[in-house]
Amino acid sequence: MDQTGLYLTKMRATAPLIHNITNYVAMNVMANVLLAAGASPAMVHAREEVAEFAGLAHALTINIGTLDPAWAEAMEMAARVMTDAGRPWVLDPVGVGATRFRQDVCARLLNLHPTVIRGNASEILALAGIGAKGRGVDSTDTVKAAEDAARDLARRTGAIVAVSGPIDYVTDGAQSASIANGHSLMPRVTALGCSLNGVIAAFLVGQTAFPATLAALAYYGIAGERAAQHAQGPGTFQSAFIDALYSLSADELTTFAKVRQA
Amino acid sequence: MDQTGLYLTKMRATAPLIHNITNYVAMNVMANVLLAAGASPAMVHAREEVAEFAGLAHALTINIGTLDPAWAEAMEMAARVMTDAGRPWVLDPVGVGATRFRQDVCARLLNLHPTVIRGNASEILALAGIGAKGRGVDSTDTVKAAEDAARDLARRTGAIVAVSGPIDYVTDGAQSASIANGHSLMPRVTALGCSLNGVIAAFLVGQTAFPATLAALAYYGIAGERAAQHAQGPGTFQSAFIDALYSLSADELTTFAKVRQA
Amino acid sequence: MDQTGLYLTKMRATAPLIHNITNYVAMNVMANVLLAAGASPAMVHAREEVAEFAGLAHALTINIGTLDPAWAEAMEMAARVMTDAGRPWVLDPVGVGATRFRQDVCARLLNLHPTVIRGNASEILALAGIGAKGRGVDSTDTVKAAEDAARDLARRTGAIVAVSGPIDYVTDGAQSASIANGHSLMPRVTALGCSLNGVIAAFLVGQTAFPATLAALAYYGIAGERAAQHAQGPGTFQSAFIDALYSLSADELTTFAKVRQA
Repeated sequence: MDQTGLYLTKMRATAPLIHNITNYVAMNVMANVLLAAGASPAMVHAREEVAEFAGLAHALTINIGTLDPAWAEAMEMAARVMTDAGRPWVLDPVGVGATRFRQDVCARLLNLHPTVIRGNASEILALAGIGAKGRGVDSTDTVKAAEDAARDLARRTGAIVAVSGPIDYVTDGAQSASIANGHSLMPRVTALGCSLNGVIAAFLVGQTAFPATLAALAYYGIAGERAAQHAQGPGTFQSAFIDALYSLSADELTTFAKVRQA
Repeated sequence: MDQTGLYLTKMRATAPLIHNITNYVAMNVMANVLLAAGASPAMVHAREEVAEFAGLAHALTINIGTLDPAWAEAMEMAARVMTDAGRPWVLDPVGVGATRFRQDVCARLLNLHPTVIRGNASEILALAGIGAKGRGVDSTDTVKAAEDAARDLARRTGAIVAVSGPIDYVTDGAQSASIANGHSLMPRVTALGCSLNGVIAAFLVGQTAFPATLAALAYYGIAGERAAQHAQGPGTFQSAFIDALYSLSADELTTFAKVRQA
Repeated sequence: MDQTGLYLTKMRATAPLIHNITNYVAMNVMANVLLAAGASPAMVHAREEVAEFAGLAHALTINIGTLDPAWAEAMEMAARVMTDAGRPWVLDPVGVGATRFRQDVCARLLNLHPTVIRGNASEILALAGIGAKGRGVDSTDTVKAAEDAARDLARRTGAIVAVSGPIDYVTDGAQSASIANGHSLMPRVTALGCSLNGVIAAFLVGQTAFPATLAALAYYGIAGERAAQHAQGPGTFQSAFIDALYSLSADELTTFAKVRQA
């Protein structure tokens, strides 16, 4: 990872079209995050067009935050297109531990082979436990506590699993790494986790998945560090964060990335 | 109300999980408002999971801004869970005077005993008139003009009724109070009224409903006053407002609250 | 167009109620844009109330960004109310070239006589080609390349057609004009194009459609120029843009508008 910044350079040169089926809370922020980073976002969900549109996109993100049955069906249709075409897609199992409905939908989506699964520690623990330990655990879990579950989930699904937290943990079941970038205001702004899915998806396009995921997380965290220097609280932080995603250079990403093989 | 700030201290110590079924315009702002204040927001609406999720939440808010029949059904399901469990919920009857559909949905929701009903003067007048005076009135009404209707509505439903305006009016049918905090830019930013519902709900958790509602309104208004000092217009106001919700202390709330028994 | 600013003065004096059926990404920004400009936004989409609500509104905007069949039906219901009442409505055919579903919905909406059609060059080219040249073209088209299609579309539908880009092009099929206001950060903020539809709709109320559309576009572009002076990137740009819409005066609009008959 000496040249983390090259993943940003390549992503910006590609300006990939990222198809997002995400929750209502996140849609606007996610679109702005992707535009600021240098990608091209689109939000399309109707079953009448979702597969046709997925066929045009370079990558897909799926986030179950504000789920309903029609959206769940659309998620499966779009994920199937990406998997069949060998294109990357990212799954964010928001609140999967909270309801049976979320667990059922996630079980179906896991069968469609996400390239990357990203969630907080509780979500990864809950997702790893589906069909085995039942309903999962509450949201007070640390990243550390989810590392074993993340590796198990990665081996079982073939996905890269990224656990977000003060120090992120990423594993493909064989190799693992930690990313120590970020700022404590980030979880105080809604949808920044959701929007990261889009950045990961954009970095995945045409790049090796494991290091591209690490680069995406480092880029995002550094933008948070930069934003905190211009913020008086979570409101001004959000604007400064979008500015930082826009202005951060590949060289700065290489210089400030705190990625360590774990 | 000498110790208004204590309600904020208690709310932040609880960090309650607030379940919101609200309109698409407000969702993102509302989540950021709740995070900045110190609560934990979640937006869940599918009939397949809404009751199960409500069972996990400390309080609920319902806002009919961008209504449709499936959402209306989910609102009833979630409100019933809260009422049966003796947990608080807040109703915001957005635009109830505008269509018959909104009036029908609100009539059903009123039967489920909201803890607090919050709206602008026209909405409270329209809501008070359902089944009696018909369609309600337009949006040029003053808070003053809605005071009698608010008291009637409170007595009829058992809810605390809060009328938002330059000077807010709150009544439970027996006692009443006014809150003179706030700033004229607040109605020029969309969804700040809607987002206030979440703050009220968060203050209600484990606290006496009438003074907790007054404290929530004062806190929100003072944050608006603070934000105006850093704003050049409604755009920068919104960011500064989130910052102010985040940084405002309990002592400042006690000092600057303009709450008066009416 | 010596007195472009008068269109802003009239709009603000009217403070028209603008009914928007738009995509989830844009809703919040659009509401803030309309509030900052001086109009009154509302988002209502359920088939159970959309026609009744449209009957109360001064103008309507329809945007197919996050379409589904129920929303498409509501769009037709609302558009029919406006057309029958002789009130203006604006159509934004987002991504119409991407899927057959979008083309079908737009074909039905075109039959309901939009007052103004606004899109980027690729969308106008795709829309002009429906039923004639098929699926349209990709998004690399220049405004220049879409001028002929815009005039054809205007003549065929009776609508004013506005093509957004670095220099906007507006035509009613007979007369045409260009607007050279704006800033390169505007397309890096999501939903600013969508939100412009609301401003156009607000300017249309009670004013001559062609010059009112030009004035709306100039006003929007000048606000972008103003915002760029206060922005460090697309995040701070968005806040500054809302501030600029709020503070820009009619005299400034007259002074800085770069409108030219084409």
